[in-house]
Amino acid sequence: MTIEAAITKLRNLLQDRLTTSAAILNEHGQNEAYFPVTAPDAVAYPLNTDEVSQIVQICAAEACPVIAYGTGTSLEGHQLAFRGGISVNMQKMNAVLAIHSQDLDAVVQPGVTRKQLNTELRATGLFFPVDPGADASLGGMAATRASGTTAVRYGTIKENVLAMEIVLADGRIIRTGSRARKSSTGYDLTKLFVGSEGTLGIITELTVKLHGQPEAISAATCSFPDISSAVDTVINTIQMGIPMARIEFVDDVMVRGFNAYNGSDLPEKPHLFVEFHGSTTAVAEQAGKFGDIAKEMGADAFKWSSNAEERKKLWDMRHNAYYAQKAVRPGSMVQNTDICVPISHLAEAILETKAEGDALGLTFTVVGHVGDGNFHCGICIAKNDPTELACAKTFTENLAKRALKFNGTVSGEHGIGVGKLKYMAAEHGDALSVMVDIKRTLDPQNIMNPGKLIPMN
Amino acid sequence: MTIEAAITKLRNLLQDRLTTSAAILNEHGQNEAYFPVTAPDAVAYPLNTDEVSQIVQICAAEACPVIAYGTGTSLEGHQLAFRGGISVNMQKMNAVLAIHSQDLDAVVQPGVTRKQLNTELRATGLFFPVDPGADASLGGMAATRASGTTAVRYGTIKENVLAMEIVLADGRIIRTGSRARKSSTGYDLTKLFVGSEGTLGIITELTVKLHGQPEAISAATCSFPDISSAVDTVINTIQMGIPMARIEFVDDVMVRGFNAYNGSDLPEKPHLFVEFHGSTTAVAEQAGKFGDIAKEMGADAFKWSSNAEERKKLWDMRHNAYYAQKAVRPGSMVQNTDICVPISHLAEAILETKAEGDALGLTFTVVGHVGDGNFHCGICIAKNDPTELACAKTFTENLAKRALKFNGTVSGEHGIGVGKLKYMAAEHGDALSVMVDIKRTLDPQNIMNPGKLIPMN
Repeated sequence: MTIEAAITKLRNLLQDRLTTSAAILNEHGQNEAYFPVTAPDAVAYPLNTDEVSQIVQICAAEACPVIAYGTGTSLEGHQLAFRGGISVNMQKMNAVLAIHSQDLDAVVQPGVTRKQLNTELRATGLFFPVDPGADASLGGMAATRASGTTAVRYGTIKENVLAMEIVLADGRIIRTGSRARKSSTGYDLTKLFVGSEGTLGIITELTVKLHGQPEAISAATCSFPDISSAVDTVINTIQMGIPMARIEFVDDVMVRGFNAYNGSDLPEKPHLFVEFHGSTTAVAEQAGKFGDIAKEMGADAFKWSSNAEERKKLWDMRHNAYYAQKAVRPGSMVQNTDICVPISHLAEAILETKAEGDALGLTFTVVGHVGDGNFHCGICIAKNDPTELACAKTFTENLAKRALKFNGTVSGEHGIGVGKLKYMAAEHGDALSVMVDIKRTLDPQNIMNPGKLIPMN
Repeated sequence: MTIEAAITKLRNLLQDRLTTSAAILNEHGQNEAYFPVTAPDAVAYPLNTDEVSQIVQICAAEACPVIAYGTGTSLEGHQLAFRGGISVNMQKMNAVLAIHSQDLDAVVQPGVTRKQLNTELRATGLFFPVDPGADASLGGMAATRASGTTAVRYGTIKENVLAMEIVLADGRIIRTGSRARKSSTGYDLTKLFVGSEGTLGIITELTVKLHGQPEAISAATCSFPDISSAVDTVINTIQMGIPMARIEFVDDVMVRGFNAYNGSDLPEKPHLFVEFHGSTTAVAEQAGKFGDIAKEMGADAFKWSSNAEERKKLWDMRHNAYYAQKAVRPGSMVQNTDICVPISHLAEAILETKAEGDALGLTFTVVGHVGDGNFHCGICIAKNDPTELACAKTFTENLAKRALKFNGTVSGEHGIGVGKLKYMAAEHGDALSVMVDIKRTLDPQNIMNPGKLIPMN
């Protein structure tokens, strides 16, 4: 039972679709977080579900770790091979298998990316709304329970996956859910596998919900005198029942980064970036009501964009926050945080966080999917500065405590991976033992992405 | 290890809140389906989570079945004690523990009913939308993954439960989820327990989402020349992105029942009952667009109601469909079915069903939460007529096959209970073995509502 033996068998199965080339292993050991390069022993490129099943059967027989790999855009090191093993790269399983436009769903292979799906949907008048920023694969998004800027209106990936095909840890292939919009027939295995980070099985097919492209879209930016008035604007907007498609908080430091990186000239104050979807009449009404609420809270410097190009520019700016964060402190490396709290505690949580970061002497931005209570700090850390790194560590650990103090969660959308394993017990208490029991039952050898999500010792 | 020993210990714990009175046992053995009265050996009335935990610990020590009991309104015999044991009646755990109006959530005990919660919410401008018709308890609704007329807009109970407290089969108390709107921290245990029908644990607390009461509401009924034009109207309305709060299909036979039971004078043709929620402007626009689509499809006999009293009358009529079904054939007993299919197959599924029922000589109504593809037949069966009962059995079994043929599900919202156990393998294939594994892991003695949902052999 060795990884080497697994590789020999896999080479027989996959021929040149199994590689141990150093460059490719290295690429699969890279990550967008702060973890060292951690490469697998081999990378497999299956063409279909049967091959994934055979790969997992071989690995199960050899007790060899199996790590599903999408686009590698995880921020918590989900794809890293800390115990070696086989990275199963899904990029060749990237077909859109069916679009059911009357049912507003599509059946896709896991390597399909969100932009690819939306390109294929262009002629249908439909779109897939979940947008984590990166052009992630749908399999990866489901595995990590991704969300992003549009979750406030359209839900996270969890609400947008109807059914899946999964290869289990022993190679069996199961189908969860159906194309029916709802069902009351048994344990919700679809939702169990969404967010399981590859630790229970490999997703080989997904049926996802689609939505009609709105007749009209209007977006805006506006600035606020302080953080609380921006957050209160969001709370009041939600309470008025005004459906926002996006509502993003951006702090003064982040605005500085945007201005530096994008050449924009936004006032260096807290901002909201908003977007409304609907009929022309509805969007005009929503935008008007939002504007009234925001102005009552002291908002200023409104910029409305209803043409597609201006909106693209706005959301590209938001999506490229990572690079703009670097522009705040050129030469630094950026570490991202991701807590989510009930929105009534959001202003307090951000203010405490700002105060602590300032006291620690850290340079950091705050951006937030504020309609969901989810916010990220981008900490700009000088390279090779252990003192600053230690401060950042204190800061992120206190952020996690703050999330739990306010009845929130240590990860709104980035997942646990390896970086946040240490918080699982604090967040879940005895419920963690149920997760461990499920993991042991479905993956008794602990070969499916071992060392991620569920602390097993 | 006997049920008798468990009862002795439970009496010590609960005193007069443990009863073996024949009348009360009989009441807990009743059901709204077609099952014979199947009473438990005793009924317990816990006051709090710790007592539930102690009850389950005692039952675990004696291998005694434990059945959570809400309001007894299940349509699939979930509450019946087919293996005897203790019915745990949650009616004394019926406090609304907290209302967080800024966060749009409420924390409730499981015995709180949906009407009770909405009464307590009246002053807040918020409401709890999930509406299965019966005034069910929230614990029961979560356990059976209930939905109803508003799911098309507000989601089922699944989408509206954020967090729960659960007593496991060994008496341990866990908390799943948090008050954060989203999270990516581990297996989604909340969604695993929602719909688990009491087979994995007992729900002792729920945090549910609330929604703002809409500024304006408008409802309407209209008739169609045939079933397909009614369903096509729904498909086109969804594709246009018109947000419906309710959209219910009612066939000609059901209309006959409504007219007989309520004294209404609707034309005896297929109908849609619809409702729109939103701002005054938005509701007017939505209603107008819907009217245009419906008229293009041949709709007639529009009746719009924007005052609360008229709307209440309309939805009371719909909610009392059970009694109106009986009025179609006075003296008969009514058996309800519950399949859900992708909406593109809905018209075909209803037409096939109507044709088969007519060929079998059955009298039956069709009503449907048509925006979700979910429809119910109410079969009016003559009492003590074995031939007709056999026809009804053939009819319901073919309905289940039809659901699966169209990529749907054998239960949209009523659940499996005991009545539909036989379809679980056909619907889920190998995925059922994963459910069995989870059940065995979390309830190794099979004491939690045994014989329901998961066929254990």
